[in-house]
Amino acid sequence: MIIIGEKINGAIPSVAEAIAQKDADFIKKLAKSQADAGAHFIDVCASTDVAVELETMKWLIDLVQEATDLPIAVDSPSAEICAASLKFCNKPGLVNSVSLEGDKIDLVFPVIADTTWECVVLLCDDTSIPKSGEQRLEVFAAIMEKAKKHNISPARLHVDPLVEMLCTSEDGINMMLGVIREIKKQYPAIHVTGGASNISFNLPARKFVNQAFLVLAMGAGMDSAIINPLHKHMMGLIYATEALKGMDEYCIEYIGGYRKGLYGPVK
Amino acid sequence: MIIIGEKINGAIPSVAEAIAQKDADFIKKLAKSQADAGAHFIDVCASTDVAVELETMKWLIDLVQEATDLPIAVDSPSAEICAASLKFCNKPGLVNSVSLEGDKIDLVFPVIADTTWECVVLLCDDTSIPKSGEQRLEVFAAIMEKAKKHNISPARLHVDPLVEMLCTSEDGINMMLGVIREIKKQYPAIHVTGGASNISFNLPARKFVNQAFLVLAMGAGMDSAIINPLHKHMMGLIYATEALKGMDEYCIEYIGGYRKGLYGPVK
Repeated sequence: MIIIGEKINGAIPSVAEAIAQKDADFIKKLAKSQADAGAHFIDVCASTDVAVELETMKWLIDLVQEATDLPIAVDSPSAEICAASLKFCNKPGLVNSVSLEGDKIDLVFPVIADTTWECVVLLCDDTSIPKSGEQRLEVFAAIMEKAKKHNISPARLHVDPLVEMLCTSEDGINMMLGVIREIKKQYPAIHVTGGASNISFNLPARKFVNQAFLVLAMGAGMDSAIINPLHKHMMGLIYATEALKGMDEYCIEYIGGYRKGLYGPVK
Repeated sequence: MIIIGEKINGAIPSVAEAIAQKDADFIKKLAKSQADAGAHFIDVCASTDVAVELETMKWLIDLVQEATDLPIAVDSPSAEICAASLKFCNKPGLVNSVSLEGDKIDLVFPVIADTTWECVVLLCDDTSIPKSGEQRLEVFAAIMEKAKKHNISPARLHVDPLVEMLCTSEDGINMMLGVIREIKKQYPAIHVTGGASNISFNLPARKFVNQAFLVLAMGAGMDSAIINPLHKHMMGLIYATEALKGMDEYCIEYIGGYRKGLYGPVK
C-alpha cells in the first residue's frame, strides 16, 4: 500500500497558521512525523491565495526536503502550479492531480513525459463527476489514451475514482468497487488511490465509515491512499488488509509495522 | 448482520469463575449487556466437565432468559448436549454447531427438522479441516444434501467456512473469500458466519487483523458473526460495512446504531 501523507495542507487551520507565521519547525516536524509513521510520499498543498501559491509551495517543499528524503506529492488545484513546482523537488515524486477538466492533463503530461514522475488522475471532466460507473470508465479510457501518447506507463499513474458521500448513495460503494476492479483488470500495474474521508461526509462517527471503506476498497484493488499516516488505527487496518489479501508473506510486513510502532494502542 | 454474542462461555476465566461460584448476577448482566450492545443471539457454552455440562447449560440458559428475550445459541462440542439443551429454551434459537464430523449432523438435524431452529454448520468432516476451497465446498454440498433431506431451508443455516490463522497462510484469505462467494451464489438466502479471532492467532495487535478480516469477509457475503458485541470499534465497522455494501438505505441503521451508543468513542 502506497501511503501519501496528507498533513501538510494549508486547508488545515494549524498548517495555514504555520504558513502565515513562517513556522519552519512546525512544517518540518509534520514532514518528519509522517515519514516516521510510514508515509511513502509527503503531500504538499499550499491552499493560499494564487498570488503567493508558488512561493509558498517552494518554501514548503524546501522544508519537507530538509526533514525527510521521501518524495513529494505536489498538490494544487492548478495544473500550472503543479508543473512549476516540480523543479523545487530533489527527486521525482507525484503530481496531485490532473483530470480531464480543462487543459490540466495536457499541461502536465508533456512535462512529466520523459521523467519518472508519477501522477494522480481524477476520473472527472468538464461536465463534473460522472454519475455512473460506465461514464467514469469512459473518462478513464480517454485519460489512458493521453498517457499512452506521452509514453507514461500505467505503473506511474494513481487513478482516483472519486468516491462520493455514502449518505446519499443508493447502492453503497458497489459501483465504485466495480470501477476499481475493472481498472485493475485492464491495467494490473496501475495504482488506484483516493482519500478516505469524503465517503463519510454528513455521517456520525466518520472514522468507522472511513476505515471500513478503505478495507473494502483495498479488497477490490486500491493500493494507494491519500491519508493521515499518524492515524494509527487506520495504519493497522491497512497493514492487516495487505496481509489478508495475501500480499505480505507470513505477515512479515505486518509484524514489522507493529515492531516499528506504526499501529499504536490497539482498541 | 446477525450478531451472535460470544461472551457467555466457560472457556473465558471470569465466566468459569461465575459458573463455579453460581454467580447468577454475573451471567445475567453479561446477557443483558450483550443484548443492549446489539446482539441478536446470546451464545451459551458451558465448557465444563461433561458430567455437569447439561445441568450447567440449563442453569446458564435459565439465567439468560431471565435477563433478555433474545434467542439462545446453544453451544457445545457435543451434539448430544446441543440437542438435549434445546428444551431449556423458551423459543427457537441457534444450534452451535454441527459438521460432518462423526454423527453430529445426523443427531441434530432430525431434532430441528420440523422447527424453526437455526443451525451453525462447520465445513469440516472426520478427516479434519479440508485444506482447499474445493474440498470445503464438497463438505458443504454433502451438508446441504442432508439439510434438504430434513427439509431444513438454507435460510436456517449459518455456514462457518472455518478460517485458519493468517500467519501460516500462503494466499491470505483469498481462498476463504472465494468459498464465501460461492456459497452465497449457490444459496443466496443462506447465512455465512464465523468467529473473528482465529485469523489473527500468533500475530501482534490482533484486533486490526480481526477487524479487517470481518470487513473483507462481509464484503464477500458473510452476514453473521460470533463475536463480542461489547467491542464497540468492531460494531462500528460492522454497521459501516453494511452501509457501504448498500444494505442500509440512507445509512438509517448506521445512524441509529450511533444514536443508541453501539459504537462508543471513535478512534
